[in-house]
Parts: sequence; C-alpha cells; structure tokens
Amino acid sequence: RSRREVLFFPSQVTCTEALLQAPGVEASEPSINCPCSLPHGESSLSRLLRALLAARASLELCLFAFSSPQLGRAVQLLHQRGVRVRVITDCDYMALNGSQIGLLRKAGIQVRHDQDLGYMHHKFAIVDKKVLITGSLNWTTQAIQNNRENVLIMEDEEYVRLFLEEFEHIWEEFNPT
Amino acid sequence: RSRREVLFFPSQVTCTEALLQAPGVEASEPSINCPCSLPHGESSLSRLLRALLAARASLELCLFAFSSPQLGRAVQLLHQRGVRVRVITDCDYMALNGSQIGLLRKAGIQVRHDQDLGYMHHKFAIVDKKVLITGSLNWTTQAIQNNRENVLIMEDEEYVRLFLEEFEHIWEEFNPT
Ligand SMILES: [Zn+2]
Ligand SMILES: [Zn+2]
Repeated sequence: RSRREVLFFPSQVTCTEALLQAPGVEASEPSINCPCSLPHGESSLSRLLRALLAARASLELCLFAFSSPQLGRAVQLLHQRGVRVRVITDCDYMALNGSQIGLLRKAGIQVRHDQDLGYMHHKFAIVDKKVLITGSLNWTTQAIQNNRENVLIMEDEEYVRLFLEEFEHIWEEFNPT
Repeated sequence: RSRREVLFFPSQVTCTEALLQAPGVEASEPSINCPCSLPHGESSLSRLLRALLAARASLELCLFAFSSPQLGRAVQLLHQRGVRVRVITDCDYMALNGSQIGLLRKAGIQVRHDQDLGYMHHKFAIVDKKVLITGSLNWTTQAIQNNRENVLIMEDEEYVRLFLEEFEHIWEEFNPT
C-alpha cells in the first residue's frame, strides 16, 4: 500500500538542527546533544523537512511563497548533495523581504518565475519523481507556526505524473530565453 | 480502484447555468438551449461544481476565502435540497466585499470562523463523508480564472477520516457559545 500521509499545521516550534546539519548523511539519531532550549521531538515541520531531505536524485518545487529559513536550508543541502533542484515561483512574492529565492539562486539553483497578472499559487514539491507533497501551506514561517494548513505526502504514481506534467508545462512556459 | 482526480486552474470561463439551475435534479444534459455567449463545455470549475453538487447528505467546507458566485450558488442549492452544510472560514477574508459568507448565513447555513491572528488557511471540502476535495485554490473568481492552482478530488477513506477529524476539531474550537 502506497504512502498516504497528511501534516496539519500550525506546527509546534521544534529544533530542526539535527536534520539540517548533516550534509550527506540522513539524520537519524535524536539530537540529544543540542544545547538549545526548543523541544527536540517531531513536528509537522520536521516531518516535512524529512520528506524533502529524502530526495536522492531530483526535487521539483512549485511554490507561491518561499521564505522559511529551515526549508531554504533543506533545499540548499539537497543541492549540495547533488540532487537536481528546480524551482518555480511567483514573481510578486519573490520580491518581498525574507524570500529564500535570491539565496537559492546565489547557490546556483535554477529558478523560474511567472511574469503575468495571475498568481502562480501552487504549493507543491515532487521528490525523486516518486512522492508528491502538496497542500495549502506556503513555505513561510508565518504559515508554519500560525496558520491552520494541510500538506499531503503521497507516494502515488498517477498524481506524481499529473503534477510533474504541470511542472514541466509551467517550466517551459516560464523559460526566459 | 478509488477515485483520484486533479483539476488544474486557471479554468476556462464556461457557462455553468445548466449545473446550477436545476434544484433537486442533477444536471446531465448539455445546456443546448442556453442563449449566452460563453462556451458550454466542461472546465475545471464545472468539474469542481459537479463534485460538490453530487452531495446527498452532508457537505463540510473549510475555506480561507469564499467569494465565487457560482460556488456560492452551488452550496445554497445543496442546502435547499436538504444537504447538511457546515462552513468554517477565516474572519479576515469574511469581512471583505464580495464574500459569499453573509449570503450563506442569510440562507440559514451554519458558519463558524476563527478569532485568532493566524489564518484559517485550509481550502477543503468533504462530500457525504466520502470524497475529499482539497488543494491550493481559494474559492474566488480571481483564483479560478487567473491563478495557477490545483484541486485534488479523492475518494479515500483514510484522507477523509483525517480531514473530517480536523474539521470537527476546528468546528468545536470555533464554537461561539
Ligand atoms: Zn536544538
Ligand atoms: Zn450559457
């Protein structure tokens, strides 16, 4: 039976350092040694990070808003590990303070964005062309910590295929050349 | 195999009168007689309307924004047909011009909303406790006609159960009494 999970938010604020500090190694031991004062258990955010950090070959991101520093670090880690990361985003949000998009570009990650009036309002990710992550959650700390949100994590061939087609379609349409 | 569908937006603007004009009867014949100048074929919006109008017993709505007149009419039709409709929404958006929430309340439909700072940012519906409809789409004409959005339609016991629990949880929490 294929993976079918949902994360609800707001997420408890937990320490995610153990997940984000080990390039090349999937963090598995609890970070018993971290001296910070946050709780170190699981949360919706840590589960989302784990689902993304499982990528080994490719990660497609199609995100209206992306400003969460933890999610930004996770994407940069994957890029450093050699995962092929492609990002589609909305030009209106991209220009705002705190957006991670500039940092991702500086790190060498490919980013494309819309030019039109309508919003590129998707919030989905595809991990290794096998797992679809999609829902209501914009990737911002505000949304993660304060909003009621949902994120589905589905290992589902049909949905992955349909969302990957949508991604490739937008990717080509936003080709600046 | 259970129903698994996705609607992508923006939706072509099509005439949805045939779907919305037959209280008590599920529209099935093409509206060959409608004199309006819009196309009369299927669109993402007409498919979303059909999925909602299939409700026979209950409809739970948990929506950040709800201003689409067509979706508002569909919900009122279901209420008139005796379907038990419950609506959870966000207080910030509810106050805006064009919101359907006031009209739904006037029609006698139960509505509850948050009082807190975080957004109630879900955009899901549950039809007859059997079908989950969820995605990035706010129920506004702007989003339907202009944005890139997705809506999943899933007949999936596990997801329905999890989202129904989330609905009941929020419904109780937003109980004003
Ligand atoms: Zn810590
Ligand atoms: Zn017509």
